[in-house]
Amino acid sequence: MNKIITIGREFGSGGREVGKRLADILQIPYYDNEIVTQLAERTQLAEDYVQKLLDESTKSIQHFPITVGRSFSRKTNPAQLKNLNIHIEQGKLLRELAEKTDCVIVGRCANYVLRDLDPLRVFVYAEMESKIKRCREKMPEHEKLSDKELRQLILNVDKSRAQYYKFVTGGQWDDKNNYDILVNTTYYSIKEIAEIIAQPLFF
Amino acid sequence: MNKIITIGREFGSGGREVGKRLADILQIPYYDNEIVTQLAERTQLAEDYVQKLLDESTKSIQHFPITVGRSFSRKTNPAQLKNLNIHIEQGKLLRELAEKTDCVIVGRCANYVLRDLDPLRVFVYAEMESKIKRCREKMPEHEKLSDKELRQLILNVDKSRAQYYKFVTGGQWDDKNNYDILVNTTYYSIKEIAEIIAQPLFF
Repeated sequence: MNKIITIGREFGSGGREVGKRLADILQIPYYDNEIVTQLAERTQLAEDYVQKLLDESTKSIQHFPITVGRSFSRKTNPAQLKNLNIHIEQGKLLRELAEKTDCVIVGRCANYVLRDLDPLRVFVYAEMESKIKRCREKMPEHEKLSDKELRQLILNVDKSRAQYYKFVTGGQWDDKNNYDILVNTTYYSIKEIAEIIAQPLFF
Repeated sequence: MNKIITIGREFGSGGREVGKRLADILQIPYYDNEIVTQLAERTQLAEDYVQKLLDESTKSIQHFPITVGRSFSRKTNPAQLKNLNIHIEQGKLLRELAEKTDCVIVGRCANYVLRDLDPLRVFVYAEMESKIKRCREKMPEHEKLSDKELRQLILNVDKSRAQYYKFVTGGQWDDKNNYDILVNTTYYSIKEIAEIIAQPLFF
């Protein structure tokens, strides 16, 4: 079975960087926005449009009457279902990629979607002050935001991720029981953390 | 500064074993019940009695009016305070041990008590079914309990730990932000997990 590493991450915690470094160390593909590119190729839609659909459907999920994970309410309107098709397509693509070769996949509920492939399920998090600092350093597009605004942005993004996770899996996004290892990037470098997770002991 | 590893753990998750193996790999002292022995020597009380005082005071804490961590309510009665003295003595001992040499300390809110010594703060957990299985295998004294009874025992012990942690630290025992790394022993062996945490990258 392939070596699959899924990475859930709080916004601003450095989860993407952990994933990239892991993929570099292990010399295996890394999938994050690459998935959007492949979805665009597959659906013959523009990349920007695919990303827009993914974002919009994630947002629309917040307004769904969620009772049981993965069930669609009868009140779901056709526009919402159309938006969700791109997520279904994404799930199929994730599986194809994971069945093809070892890989690192960031986000997209991959820990749940690919659970039958026994992935190493990692969750990356950090204290709020550390996330604000990282956002400020790494995201030039957010440079004009105050600390208060950045904090709110982080909370909003993570709230949206948690809602999406709840919808897709029925579970809680940051519940430790949905992961094998959780690492706090507040006091340890991303490089160290990636090297630890890459230990062959895990595989 | 010494290399201090603190281990918080869910009951039945194998946290003690992770700690013991870590100490073996790193060739450093391991403190768990050893602390009770040393407390007994220091206070000139019998070991059994020290353990009884620790247990009793942890239980009595559940009935404290907890508002702010580490503050004592005016309603605290003298018997409760007497019970708590053993915890204060334990805190002093933890610090002395940690300042003397590298070490692994299991439980006792050591992640918080020794936070100024920059410990590597580990939390060990597992899925409920895995904890029940481990309890059955490792604890002959519980062999007559049904799965339902074991589950309740696990929930009760962890509830008591969480209440004690709340009282001592003001924080939440199983909040990932109180730890640097959390490991799930459900699908990986204790041996593998200990070897990963022992990586020199962490120090």
